[in-house]
Amino acid sequence: MKFEQLYADRARCMKTSAVREFFKLTEQPDVMSFAGGFPSADFFPMDKVNEVLSALIAEEGRFALQYGATEGYGKLRGYIAEKMTKEGAPCTAEQILITNGSQQGMDLVSKLFVNTGDVVLVEEPGYVGGLGAIYNYEADRVPIPLDDDGIRTDLLAACLRKLKLENRLPKFIYLVPNFQNPTGVCMSLERRRELLALARQYNFLILEDNPYGELRYEGEAIPSIKSMDTEGRVIYLGSFSKTFSPGIRVGWLMAEPEIIAKLSSAKGSTDLCSNSLGQRLAYRFAASGYIEKHVASLLPRYQERRDLMLDCMEKYFPPGVKWTRPQGGFFIWVTFPHGMSAHEILLKAIEQKVAFVDGAGFFVNDNGRNTARFSFSEASPDKIRKGIAILGEILEAEMAVACKKEKTA
Amino acid sequence: MKFEQLYADRARCMKTSAVREFFKLTEQPDVMSFAGGFPSADFFPMDKVNEVLSALIAEEGRFALQYGATEGYGKLRGYIAEKMTKEGAPCTAEQILITNGSQQGMDLVSKLFVNTGDVVLVEEPGYVGGLGAIYNYEADRVPIPLDDDGIRTDLLAACLRKLKLENRLPKFIYLVPNFQNPTGVCMSLERRRELLALARQYNFLILEDNPYGELRYEGEAIPSIKSMDTEGRVIYLGSFSKTFSPGIRVGWLMAEPEIIAKLSSAKGSTDLCSNSLGQRLAYRFAASGYIEKHVASLLPRYQERRDLMLDCMEKYFPPGVKWTRPQGGFFIWVTFPHGMSAHEILLKAIEQKVAFVDGAGFFVNDNGRNTARFSFSEASPDKIRKGIAILGEILEAEMAVACKKEKTA
Repeated sequence: MKFEQLYADRARCMKTSAVREFFKLTEQPDVMSFAGGFPSADFFPMDKVNEVLSALIAEEGRFALQYGATEGYGKLRGYIAEKMTKEGAPCTAEQILITNGSQQGMDLVSKLFVNTGDVVLVEEPGYVGGLGAIYNYEADRVPIPLDDDGIRTDLLAACLRKLKLENRLPKFIYLVPNFQNPTGVCMSLERRRELLALARQYNFLILEDNPYGELRYEGEAIPSIKSMDTEGRVIYLGSFSKTFSPGIRVGWLMAEPEIIAKLSSAKGSTDLCSNSLGQRLAYRFAASGYIEKHVASLLPRYQERRDLMLDCMEKYFPPGVKWTRPQGGFFIWVTFPHGMSAHEILLKAIEQKVAFVDGAGFFVNDNGRNTARFSFSEASPDKIRKGIAILGEILEAEMAVACKKEKTA
Repeated sequence: MKFEQLYADRARCMKTSAVREFFKLTEQPDVMSFAGGFPSADFFPMDKVNEVLSALIAEEGRFALQYGATEGYGKLRGYIAEKMTKEGAPCTAEQILITNGSQQGMDLVSKLFVNTGDVVLVEEPGYVGGLGAIYNYEADRVPIPLDDDGIRTDLLAACLRKLKLENRLPKFIYLVPNFQNPTGVCMSLERRRELLALARQYNFLILEDNPYGELRYEGEAIPSIKSMDTEGRVIYLGSFSKTFSPGIRVGWLMAEPEIIAKLSSAKGSTDLCSNSLGQRLAYRFAASGYIEKHVASLLPRYQERRDLMLDCMEKYFPPGVKWTRPQGGFFIWVTFPHGMSAHEILLKAIEQKVAFVDGAGFFVNDNGRNTARFSFSEASPDKIRKGIAILGEILEAEMAVACKKEKTA
């Protein structure tokens, strides 16, 4: 590379995400992709969008095509503040920053808080986009394992005691408490409380990322960590990407006004403002009350796909393969028998036009080689049936080979 | 501030931009604002946008509302590569990264190249957004003065000799060679060549930001620095913000494929991808050939405003006030007599609902207190006439006071 010697040190932390590489693959229409965490394009409310956009350009095109305030479109901030308040986290519009999807929230928070070598706690496995955003600022990401109730607060407490002795207390913890990406699990109420107590005790922030919370297909909703936060210690990320459209790139960040002011300044230097057209489209779509109806209509449709994928896994996957049973969101987390390589299974699957995400990318270190993330949100029922059946065959064959080897040895 | 002790060191470099603060002020309809570098909303092609959006949602809504590739929409990248090639800078789609306006290009380039304390050369005065993006990564910004032919390459050469002795050679130089923000001046062909030679000699990159190049009202176009670059040493930033719409946040960056790959990885961690809706709108608007007609229609309209503002300055500003006469773009740079404070004049102007930008923000150090940026692009002819006349009165009064003080002293 000709100009590599001019790169900053952090360039070594800029890695191409395995998930993003799949964005390209999934553009081929005959691929059975369980890879991207995409909402289904089949469910986009096209007619409504067309109607809203026509009115928008006719009535406020001057503003929809113009630069807007860095903090975001005022009415949208107000709407979101009301929404958050209704959901148990009282706030004003001044506490809302509009972002280009939640991903920008992760970037800006990392930019504001992370010095090279600072500790940031992450879930293991954790959302690859969050891990990347944090890593780009050269954080030392310390992983805390998850189980079916979310992050293990007992292990977190032990880790914090150790970090304190080393004088390396974390700046913040990043986590997805609802229908976690990639595992689909929810963090229990008790653990949310324990986490808040630990954050207070050791004085770090909590970056709560909640893109999937509204997509619950069964069970009781659990209060957000933000709703239990009495100190302004939680920075909350929300998004229209899963409930409406990711292509408009409109998410939000809720925090204390002084943090919003600082993040807003950082955002200004990053991209001046988020796109006005998408913000005003989201506002009209949401504030008209249409979004509630739309989300309600999404639930049975995504639930159908989840149920189908779980049923197919039950039917086609050989014994020894394990998976989570998420109550919402987009993801099922699959664990192959120890020693099997998800990467090699993926390469074989791709030959037969089936895609999922190799789990290793969701781990900070070299773990998780026998894990995989399956998204049930985007593929049609036909593709789910066919794709999981094909994978079942591949897995049967792999396990037969593994068994033979073991016997020979 | 409660959590200030958790901030990263770079937080001290996150300042609220004076320009962005004006975004709020200019939302009031009765303000005569010459502040923001906004295109005129009067000139937005609403009917065409409405037509294109309807077709877009009907024909490719599935993609316009969905996540897209991090590098950008393939067809748009191809269109831009052809455009750049036609304009003398041959390239392929792989050399184009779509960004959220050029501002994101400045951020990503800084993120990829700047370590804390690294030298980055900037114009003095220089674009405040560029200065901010670079500063956010804790660069040591070394300013090089401008004159009517752009950046002073003689002073640049002297500065580089000194920096070499100090072992602090720059990573890159950031500049706006056409109708510069804030001065409106163009860099001469000769100086562009000298700059390229210096960049080769001292091995630094050139970040060429060209949002205004297509808006030339008189005189001959000067080849871009990129078009004379034989080594891939120039990273070029382009934008639809001034020629079409800033509210869609679609710009582009052209560079060598290996730099694009690295910047694309950085962008993925920053916001996953740019908004699909705006990218596809820009593509349809541009690839249909409509954009050329639109830009051609903008030229006489902006020229009229430029001419009017220059005439009004001639008519109303008292002797001793100086200003540039740009051949294109949006900006006139005003220098008040030495010792006069642009900030104090601005405060008085705002009382009478007239706004411009205090020039000090365009300087790295504490210079330029008697300078100001006037944008003629956004205000209506009536507002230009009225606003400049009001400013003339304010300036007359200020100068009378200054004169009196001088006599008394």
